Amino acid sequence: MTPTNGRDEGAVTPTAADIADVVAYMRVCRKEVDDALERLLPATTSAPLLATEAMRYSLFAGGKRLRPTLTLAAADTISPSGALGARNLVFPAACAIEMIHTYSLIHDDLPSMDDDTLRRGRPTSHVVYGEGMAVLAGDALLTEAFRILAVYPETDDATLLARKLRVAARTALAAGAVGMVGGQVIDLDAAGQVPAQAGSHGAPLDADTLRAMHERKTGALIGAAAAAGAIMVGGTEAQIQAVDGYGSALGLGFQIVDDILDVEGGSDALGKTVGKDAAAGKPTYPSMFGLDESRRLARAAIEQAKAALEQGGLGGRLSGIADWVLARGH
Amino acid sequence: MTPTNGRDEGAVTPTAADIADVVAYMRVCRKEVDDALERLLPATTSAPLLATEAMRYSLFAGGKRLRPTLTLAAADTISPSGALGARNLVFPAACAIEMIHTYSLIHDDLPSMDDDTLRRGRPTSHVVYGEGMAVLAGDALLTEAFRILAVYPETDDATLLARKLRVAARTALAAGAVGMVGGQVIDLDAAGQVPAQAGSHGAPLDADTLRAMHERKTGALIGAAAAAGAIMVGGTEAQIQAVDGYGSALGLGFQIVDDILDVEGGSDALGKTVGKDAAAGKPTYPSMFGLDESRRLARAAIEQAKAALEQGGLGGRLSGIADWVLARGH
Repeated sequence: MTPTNGRDEGAVTPTAADIADVVAYMRVCRKEVDDALERLLPATTSAPLLATEAMRYSLFAGGKRLRPTLTLAAADTISPSGALGARNLVFPAACAIEMIHTYSLIHDDLPSMDDDTLRRGRPTSHVVYGEGMAVLAGDALLTEAFRILAVYPETDDATLLARKLRVAARTALAAGAVGMVGGQVIDLDAAGQVPAQAGSHGAPLDADTLRAMHERKTGALIGAAAAAGAIMVGGTEAQIQAVDGYGSALGLGFQIVDDILDVEGGSDALGKTVGKDAAAGKPTYPSMFGLDESRRLARAAIEQAKAALEQGGLGGRLSGIADWVLARGH
Repeated sequence: MTPTNGRDEGAVTPTAADIADVVAYMRVCRKEVDDALERLLPATTSAPLLATEAMRYSLFAGGKRLRPTLTLAAADTISPSGALGARNLVFPAACAIEMIHTYSLIHDDLPSMDDDTLRRGRPTSHVVYGEGMAVLAGDALLTEAFRILAVYPETDDATLLARKLRVAARTALAAGAVGMVGGQVIDLDAAGQVPAQAGSHGAPLDADTLRAMHERKTGALIGAAAAAGAIMVGGTEAQIQAVDGYGSALGLGFQIVDDILDVEGGSDALGKTVGKDAAAGKPTYPSMFGLDESRRLARAAIEQAKAALEQGGLGGRLSGIADWVLARGH
């Protein structure tokens, strides 16, 4: 292997114009998602004002909206014509999954977890609202996400009813103990934050467990976000599986790139304190494999994501977003 | 009004035999629910072992299973013949709602909320597993509940698909910021646990707010539990509304009786430290209204529950459970 700073010169490298095009697409999606979230969780509801404020504080904190963008992109990729109708079908799921992602950030930041006081440049939920309210704000967002999945789009059509239930089930599997919460359990356990008498693992993570942790913690929900788009627009089983596999691999690649950025700087791109994970003694891809090998692993994950897409005969916007994820790390 | 220790002698008072019959019915339901929960959340899943253990620790802590029993009782009341088929339809929802109730107990007990170290005679989740794991165990149970609602009963029947989605939506509304979580927000705020700069209310609860808090915190999910049974077995709109109204009023009555037991002793019935709420300076029905008036209010709530049932032409097991709730307080 040539020392090419982690790049595999055999693959087609996207041009700066390609990346700019993806960035522009993602900017439009982000705006559309923000608007849809505003409609789904307005400032005044029949909930106590304080609850709504705490939910909105974290939901509208300037996130990239990667997950809902993938839901939209999956719909656009599978159903490029009639995209408007397709989008109306997928916005609720896109927004629900962003709510689940937001809840997970609120809970991850808690003093009893990662104890982060800053997120996307703003004080975290528990700093502003107190720890109890932060727990509740997360609980409320998670619950509201499933209400939205159950209610929208409103329909009597049996095919759409079945798709809604499938998306809810797929999302819950990805978000729960088998997926995202399970990954956080492994993380917490490896960080020594579970009492020994409770049957904690205690030992530091090895490479396989680090990968498994990220696949659960980040990959699973990103896979579900992409799959939700494919399911709602009526993708074939092959397309749904392709998009799901793409999302899971993309999520791993995204996490490795995050780890690289955490070492290299680029706090603007990352939106959190640089070097925090390393300072906390948490194992990361660079600390375990070094920067060059981490870059190679990120590229391998992205190639895997694109290969999964191609197996389903897909490419399009989803492929472009994969290129963008990798470009962040360079 | 005659001083009759809170009893309204104008109403038909159930005999000891009536109550014993209800207790026997509830004991059978409890066993069936425990068995169904065991099947739905076995000790070994594809989740990390620690996650499953923490979920099961709280789920199998000897609860009364009131909520799932109401789901079964609603099915039995509306669909007394063919009860076996009806029960197969409602067990998943019954179990999912018990998981949601269990998650709410884990989070309510956290140091940042009520800071309880004992629940049903056992150390609370955060005492055993640490605070971070307790947050995650609750998150996982909540998420798994919605997965179960989305997946079971497995069916292609359009009518059942629509019922499943309606139950999921009704349950999420009851469990979220408009319902249970919202009630806990009011509770936390009134206890002075939200920073002033976050827009906390801060003032002690008045009688109306106390009632509204309990209606959200306890009544809403109990209403949803009963409604879920009615929805799944195909109850008419009038029956569903009747059962829903019954459950909400029953939940308020149940909470008032809990408050009374908290003052009077009877820690066996209550399963937690006697006098804890009063010691924490939390407003309760007895502290706000006195014991006699609290008994009258409990009876009024139970009468309201039974009146709601009668409006839907219902009675049966649901009516008996209402009598049982009131009998606990005497």
